[in-house]
Amino acid sequence: MILLGVDPGLRVCGYAVISAAKVGETLLEAGVIRADQSKPLEERLLQIAEDFASLLKKFSPESVAVEGLYAHYKHPRTAILMGHARGVILQQSAAVGAKVRSFSATRIKKSLTGNGRAGKPQMQRAIQSMLGLPQIPEPPDVADAIAVALCCANEQNRVKLSL
Amino acid sequence: MILLGVDPGLRVCGYAVISAAKVGETLLEAGVIRADQSKPLEERLLQIAEDFASLLKKFSPESVAVEGLYAHYKHPRTAILMGHARGVILQQSAAVGAKVRSFSATRIKKSLTGNGRAGKPQMQRAIQSMLGLPQIPEPPDVADAIAVALCCANEQNRVKLSL
Repeated sequence: MILLGVDPGLRVCGYAVISAAKVGETLLEAGVIRADQSKPLEERLLQIAEDFASLLKKFSPESVAVEGLYAHYKHPRTAILMGHARGVILQQSAAVGAKVRSFSATRIKKSLTGNGRAGKPQMQRAIQSMLGLPQIPEPPDVADAIAVALCCANEQNRVKLSL
Repeated sequence: MILLGVDPGLRVCGYAVISAAKVGETLLEAGVIRADQSKPLEERLLQIAEDFASLLKKFSPESVAVEGLYAHYKHPRTAILMGHARGVILQQSAAVGAKVRSFSATRIKKSLTGNGRAGKPQMQRAIQSMLGLPQIPEPPDVADAIAVALCCANEQNRVKLSL
């Protein structure tokens, strides 16, 4: 099962493609979509949409996993702009029939470390260990995208085990 | 010149298509795009994208006019969700090469009434009078979409006069 984790943003969208099997998860590809900040908002959104559509086409993920909305209220303008990018990501996912799964930050942390309040270093170690990576994924947007993809994989496995 | 004004929203998107000429503006079509509230967020966004794409195809507007972002900070969750719909609207506009123009609420009010702090009744009368409408456009999302389209028409005429 292929899962695509995304950390949507207007400047940088982190993404991570993982293959989730009974024996564990494998990272197939991770990276960022960067929109040209010198361009107007609508053209940056178009660029994000096109680059993300290419990822969807390349990997045909069963699910697209994103973080929930709640954590972004401190900087309303930034949050609303992030919402623009997130809207485009979700709409493109729906357009190709991928399921969209949304997880709270607490749930992601708990899923990867057992502790819903885990700090960044603990999360990074968990990601490194689960995927057997030689180093910590950079930039943070990529690490966040991997984390939400792994959380989604864990939750889907859990559902299967309980069936 | 065809202008498409939009009041983006996740529940209701108001839109207004006007033809702007030297002699004045004509309302060609106005209405709302409604997304099915029982569906998940990504499917509502897809529905908005598809319905809006049909409007773009039908009218081939030169510009798409929307209100700016600033006025929405009181209810962050609602504002971020509105941002999702706005993101999709802007991306779809860019995808067909329509120019996107954004106007502040104050600028829209000033453009239509001469008073940047005009109340709703004054704005409604201005819209009715400019377009020779028999009654006040309803719901408010449609009136807001007409207002931003008329503001855009005024600004573009102003630019032409000053050339």
